[in-house]
Amino acid sequence: MADINSPHEISPTGEPVTVTTGPIRGSRKVHVGKLGVAMREIDLAGGEAPVRVYDTSGPYTDPAASIDIQAGLPALRRDWQLARGDVEEYAPREVKPEDNGQLGPDRSGGVPPFPAALRRPLRAKSGGNISQMHYARRGIITPEMEYVAERENLGRARLAEYVRDGQDWGAQIPDYVTPEFVRDEVARGRAIIPSNVNHPECEPMAIGRNFLVKINANIGNSAVASDVANEVDKMVWSIRWGADTVMDLSTGRNIHDTREWIIRNSPVPIGTVPIYQALEKVGGVAEDLTWEIYRDTLIEQAEQGVDYFTIHAGVRLPYVPMAAKRMTGIVSRGGSIMAKWCLSHHKESFLYERFDEITEICKAYDIAYSLGDGLRPGSIYDANDEAQFAELYTLGELTKRAWAQDVQVMIEGPGHVPMHKIKENMTKQLEACGEAPFYTLGPLVTDIAPGYDHITSGIGAAQIGWYGTAMLCYVTPKEHLGLPDRDDVKVGVVTYKLAAHAADLAKGHPAAQVRDDALSKARFEFRWRDQFNLSLDPDTAEQYHDQTLPAEGAKTAHFCSMCGPKFCSMKISQEVRDFAARQNSDSYLAAENIRSETPPEARANAEEGMEEMSRRYKEKGERLYLPEDEVDGVGPAT
Amino acid sequence: MADINSPHEISPTGEPVTVTTGPIRGSRKVHVGKLGVAMREIDLAGGEAPVRVYDTSGPYTDPAASIDIQAGLPALRRDWQLARGDVEEYAPREVKPEDNGQLGPDRSGGVPPFPAALRRPLRAKSGGNISQMHYARRGIITPEMEYVAERENLGRARLAEYVRDGQDWGAQIPDYVTPEFVRDEVARGRAIIPSNVNHPECEPMAIGRNFLVKINANIGNSAVASDVANEVDKMVWSIRWGADTVMDLSTGRNIHDTREWIIRNSPVPIGTVPIYQALEKVGGVAEDLTWEIYRDTLIEQAEQGVDYFTIHAGVRLPYVPMAAKRMTGIVSRGGSIMAKWCLSHHKESFLYERFDEITEICKAYDIAYSLGDGLRPGSIYDANDEAQFAELYTLGELTKRAWAQDVQVMIEGPGHVPMHKIKENMTKQLEACGEAPFYTLGPLVTDIAPGYDHITSGIGAAQIGWYGTAMLCYVTPKEHLGLPDRDDVKVGVVTYKLAAHAADLAKGHPAAQVRDDALSKARFEFRWRDQFNLSLDPDTAEQYHDQTLPAEGAKTAHFCSMCGPKFCSMKISQEVRDFAARQNSDSYLAAENIRSETPPEARANAEEGMEEMSRRYKEKGERLYLPEDEVDGVGPAT
Repeated sequence: MADINSPHEISPTGEPVTVTTGPIRGSRKVHVGKLGVAMREIDLAGGEAPVRVYDTSGPYTDPAASIDIQAGLPALRRDWQLARGDVEEYAPREVKPEDNGQLGPDRSGGVPPFPAALRRPLRAKSGGNISQMHYARRGIITPEMEYVAERENLGRARLAEYVRDGQDWGAQIPDYVTPEFVRDEVARGRAIIPSNVNHPECEPMAIGRNFLVKINANIGNSAVASDVANEVDKMVWSIRWGADTVMDLSTGRNIHDTREWIIRNSPVPIGTVPIYQALEKVGGVAEDLTWEIYRDTLIEQAEQGVDYFTIHAGVRLPYVPMAAKRMTGIVSRGGSIMAKWCLSHHKESFLYERFDEITEICKAYDIAYSLGDGLRPGSIYDANDEAQFAELYTLGELTKRAWAQDVQVMIEGPGHVPMHKIKENMTKQLEACGEAPFYTLGPLVTDIAPGYDHITSGIGAAQIGWYGTAMLCYVTPKEHLGLPDRDDVKVGVVTYKLAAHAADLAKGHPAAQVRDDALSKARFEFRWRDQFNLSLDPDTAEQYHDQTLPAEGAKTAHFCSMCGPKFCSMKISQEVRDFAARQNSDSYLAAENIRSETPPEARANAEEGMEEMSRRYKEKGERLYLPEDEVDGVGPAT
Repeated sequence: MADINSPHEISPTGEPVTVTTGPIRGSRKVHVGKLGVAMREIDLAGGEAPVRVYDTSGPYTDPAASIDIQAGLPALRRDWQLARGDVEEYAPREVKPEDNGQLGPDRSGGVPPFPAALRRPLRAKSGGNISQMHYARRGIITPEMEYVAERENLGRARLAEYVRDGQDWGAQIPDYVTPEFVRDEVARGRAIIPSNVNHPECEPMAIGRNFLVKINANIGNSAVASDVANEVDKMVWSIRWGADTVMDLSTGRNIHDTREWIIRNSPVPIGTVPIYQALEKVGGVAEDLTWEIYRDTLIEQAEQGVDYFTIHAGVRLPYVPMAAKRMTGIVSRGGSIMAKWCLSHHKESFLYERFDEITEICKAYDIAYSLGDGLRPGSIYDANDEAQFAELYTLGELTKRAWAQDVQVMIEGPGHVPMHKIKENMTKQLEACGEAPFYTLGPLVTDIAPGYDHITSGIGAAQIGWYGTAMLCYVTPKEHLGLPDRDDVKVGVVTYKLAAHAADLAKGHPAAQVRDDALSKARFEFRWRDQFNLSLDPDTAEQYHDQTLPAEGAKTAHFCSMCGPKFCSMKISQEVRDFAARQNSDSYLAAENIRSETPPEARANAEEGMEEMSRRYKEKGERLYLPEDEVDGVGPAT
């Protein structure tokens, strides 16, 4: 197995782009079904069956794949797209200097253009609609839907062993996911499969309440820090640990070229907030934004392959004054830009007014809406206020307008919300937005822990995921303080994976508990390596273990560092279990009942029996593990 | 202000004992009321009132206190105890070699005895009862109760500003805590004030559903690692960050002396699991445990000043076979020891049989019970099973037996529990145990994230704290993997502080939201230093900030590293708010209504008005902050 940190270095321009490749420790890549859906399998010791887990990491963890960052990933979906016969190639919009932040045509000092970005983009033939929702509503099961069905069925092969157990708050998670189920969920708007026709490298995935809970990681350079090599690396790093989608929130210069590098190398859907780039194009002056500049930016990003757009079309002019009463005003960048635009022009938001025109663009490329919550609360004080819910109901109105054109929609949610107000967010969202998937940032359940906001938000994320949120947007430890580095990205992703998994467990998702059970069994049986390999972060688990007990022998020892060799509860408990299993359990209960409910003479008999048991135990050398042929001698006492 | 990491070094024996002293960054120690209850005040800039926060750190953060680890802390409660006239001094039990793990009388190779441990212990005069519950039930308000009342009233001075907002699940948190309220809660058994008469250094605190949610940190050396200097330092370090009580879970050698060093220097209650030490005394062979050895250990620890005992008296013989069906058997160390004892002797647990005798000891020293959940689930699979609840109902029975002798009780709870099964634990505990305080370990909401179990358990802890758990036992990142070091202890404590605070917020505790609001206001107003100082961990918050924007100027800059200077949503939002506040908000709504509901000619008028507003805004130089004397010129448009 390759070292997990072995870098894959390429220096196309003298500036190395280094990404992490090689399998995740203890895992094998497998390809399942006729579409070869990539999954990860964890082999176990002790004759245990391997555990199959959902895999977002793409070819980077496949030793058989050859990775070339300059060439990008293979176009997995291209044949499916062309086979539908409803797209056309065309000459793309020319890249303009302002796309990269007012750099000259030579892009000097900027990021090198992606070398293989010469292909002609696709779009729907004139007036057509190529959205997955459009196909779904016409009864067509696409290969994308088949791929999703296969991918979501992890672990359900073992379903027969499980009694469904959970509180799903009205979700309708099936025992087994069929392509038809996927189609139906997409057709109803309860799930989306983000899949811009110009991002054929993307491995199809679904976001919806009746599928596994997903997580998103944000990356992106800013005017203050970061560069393209870092961002491509962060994308690969975040999907390695489980990010289901990645949002590129770059600001400042080089936005266009940075995004091209990211998309061409991404096997997961990429989301953006187009207003960020549009604002750069007008020199950062919100008032100077126009529909024309914004629309041009949408086309630019559509041609590159952005899979979903965050659009803050719910920040309407009349809602802006509502935010004036708040503790922390408008904390969404997109929301505050639009609020400033509305106020300074004293006009309704052009995103709201032009919404149907945006939808036309979305349907021509199959870009999903992620309707932004520009008025989300930025503090506990502001949670669930008038501004927030006014916007939510507008997002519901816009959802129906998008659905009228068969365009896929999800809805963004808060923010900062104390625990007792989380449920109301989910309930209102389901009601206002017709069960369109909810996609929330946390929520953070307190404001007082900057530096630990991956945790304050992980608490809220697990809960809202349980209640029905389909995708959780991660928060890193640097939230509110600075830009996340590579370590922060990993901590954020793993925290959100565990929150999403906790939500799946609580919903009673039939594919969820297999992994918990396998890990707990390994723990109980002192299969340390299996315990590490089954965990969300095998490297950290092993490293922590080794800080106390570094010896290789300690990985198989029947004790661990918390208790020491003599004192391990797991070890004692195993002995107890082994011993008890050889008895008729009922005899204990019977003896006990005799003790408490029967006359003294009967009790004396029972006690005599128990003493006999005790004597035999000592006779057998006080061994709790007995060979089968010696067991009869210590059978039940009575 | 002293550097927070300035060590306080003492080398009594050549082996340095180093603890961290000095104020927490940005805080002042204050002493409140006639009892001088220690609290922490955070001074703010911008004319904001200081924020007072609960302070568990004792004299270590008081620059006016002189700290001498060899002498221990001052005996704060001694005069109160003696004034009650119901205690007697007596010659203590002699320290035996086995108390420190079979070391010879010179304790060679072990921990040096605590130098000032020569005093004579106190206990109730013959047959007497000195428990806080006993006083409370006789209508006596003790200084301990007065201290608790003062301490719990944090922030309630500002209560007038707040509308109570929360879901308290039947808790009865008062607007203001009076000494009589504390007395009544203790009398009813709904709260405890752990206060061994031989731990007069302890600052009184309450654990109960109607008080602030508390947290416990576990420390303790083991046969494999750790030493006494580390453990004293970890105790001081854990209370610095907010641990309300500390459990010394030492095993191996030097248990007696390690504990003496810890208790003499601890301003918070110390809990232990006496069976750990008793087992050491019989060479680690569970079967060799006897009531006499156990009882002697209780007296030994009672004389040292242990404030609460974890006693696994609910692990009864008939319940042991129930654990045989489990995925992970018995994961409690104490539980597994007792299970082994019961099985090998085929007798009922001596802890259960001798319970009333243990209660006699507790009442003579005022030691609180922490009735251990020896059968707590160690995996998601085992959550809420027969074994767990059988034990819980036995703990309820024992609670009533302890209360019959006026002895304080809390109940320990799980463990590993998926989110949808957490509430049932709380509901059953309240019912079975007559509202005795619940004290839970986590619970962990999934098994698959070793290395991140402070987070998996923090998610469960926040929820069960919200539902009514009175104290949350922390879990560190090393849980299941190794022994926590200093950094792990801090991460564990801060994680649990934020979970406890989130629970207080969700319950609608009137003293909770003040700090969130102050921090959020500081954030919105770019008072970076205030934001750091108000956080649970000012050092980490500032360090993370400085990684991206290290310059001193950036601490007061009106932007931060996430967005850069031009692009800050907080800045834009402030401008929007400022501008909007100068308008009549209703005019926006009116204009909006006109737009959507009125005939074209009226709409044209409204639009003209809005254009006029826009023109004036531009005339004024597009400034959003206007001097007061220029405001009229941009008044409402209509």
